[in-house]
Amino acid sequence: MGNYRFTLEYDGTDFEGWQMQPEGIRTVQGCLTEALSRVAGRPVSCMGSGRTDAGVHAEGQVANARFETRLAPNELLRALNDNLPGDVAILDVCIVADAFHARRDALSKHYRYRIWNHPVRSPLRARRCWWVRGALDVKAIGSALPELLGERDFASFQGGGSSVTTSVRRLFRAEVSGRPGGEVHLDFEADGFLRHMVRNLAGTLVEVGLGRRPPDLAPVLAARDRAAAGVTAPPQGLALVAVEYP
Amino acid sequence: MGNYRFTLEYDGTDFEGWQMQPEGIRTVQGCLTEALSRVAGRPVSCMGSGRTDAGVHAEGQVANARFETRLAPNELLRALNDNLPGDVAILDVCIVADAFHARRDALSKHYRYRIWNHPVRSPLRARRCWWVRGALDVKAIGSALPELLGERDFASFQGGGSSVTTSVRRLFRAEVSGRPGGEVHLDFEADGFLRHMVRNLAGTLVEVGLGRRPPDLAPVLAARDRAAAGVTAPPQGLALVAVEYP
Repeated sequence: MGNYRFTLEYDGTDFEGWQMQPEGIRTVQGCLTEALSRVAGRPVSCMGSGRTDAGVHAEGQVANARFETRLAPNELLRALNDNLPGDVAILDVCIVADAFHARRDALSKHYRYRIWNHPVRSPLRARRCWWVRGALDVKAIGSALPELLGERDFASFQGGGSSVTTSVRRLFRAEVSGRPGGEVHLDFEADGFLRHMVRNLAGTLVEVGLGRRPPDLAPVLAARDRAAAGVTAPPQGLALVAVEYP
Repeated sequence: MGNYRFTLEYDGTDFEGWQMQPEGIRTVQGCLTEALSRVAGRPVSCMGSGRTDAGVHAEGQVANARFETRLAPNELLRALNDNLPGDVAILDVCIVADAFHARRDALSKHYRYRIWNHPVRSPLRARRCWWVRGALDVKAIGSALPELLGERDFASFQGGGSSVTTSVRRLFRAEVSGRPGGEVHLDFEADGFLRHMVRNLAGTLVEVGLGRRPPDLAPVLAARDRAAAGVTAPPQGLALVAVEYP
């Protein structure tokens, strides 16, 4: 019985998110489970590093599954990709220690939020970016970011319906790049993210960039109240770029 | 009566190409005609710089149309975009001389063909790139390109069903960029292109890059026979980047 770690890319547009759901709801975990079970010849379950919402993409989601196969990792990769639909693919397969657990062992995750910041929408970017028409003050956004770094209580950026025990997370990286007239990217790296946290950060930072709220986010964090932060940015701008393990 | 020039971007995936077709076939020209007619309040027809095939994208297609409106160009742009579906948008509107004709006045066109050259397919690039699994010899492709430059008879690269009087075109630019493991781009600029010409060039050059045919394309051009060249690359890798006018 091997424990396999998979790195996955997917276009989230036509998925109801990562997490498997009952009966006919199309999810990435559901497609992966099906492909694994078909290749292994018996039911196989898999575990992701975490959920991604409906419409959210991944360039490097990580999952693991325990099962038996005679296939070498590179053969397994091809067999699985042949059994996956066009909007999801396995980029890498490796054999890991039996104790490896994609969710529990994750040290950090890197998310990128893409904004198309232009007076006119971009059809070729519609599936990957949030269209923000007004010119963003990228400097103002940049000045808001340091406050978010380190161990912080992100309760104000937590979406409803979540059941986690603590809303404290450690943010290692918060960066903005790009300029009006093109794509503006927000990069976040943390030991973990709350439900909708990146989208709520992106929505709030766009309000800062449009001059609709001050760059000082200290009072927003201190409020520990979702109502103190900005709107939830739409899912299509978000991608899980990478997950780090020891 | 003004003559308006439009620059358009579209995601060609869900269109049956540029050219308007009868009854219920979804085309870019059809969508633009509908939007123009709705905004102008009466039937308006439009002319593109040329056709693009089903599934082919545009970052800078150009069209023109003559009609009357009280709207300023920037208001017209917004009104038209509000009446266009999400996969097509007008990037720019300007008033041009009455004699301007998007097809006849075009001096040159720039097409880019995108290849995802990686052992594993990329779901996030599936709509924009041709997936070529084997590592391309980019140097070999580069060495094949100079032969294509200048005034050449491209009969060997012309798709069937075309009714043009001459297959001679002047190629100003033929470039390859990128490397295996990532995207490889082919850029072509010419005074005009034959039907399927860029896709037939791309298919042939990929065969060169895979070592399946020699880089010397002189005999292929000399043959003036479609059978002498390579396969037709699929449409999703192709985009009309820009059209130049005097």
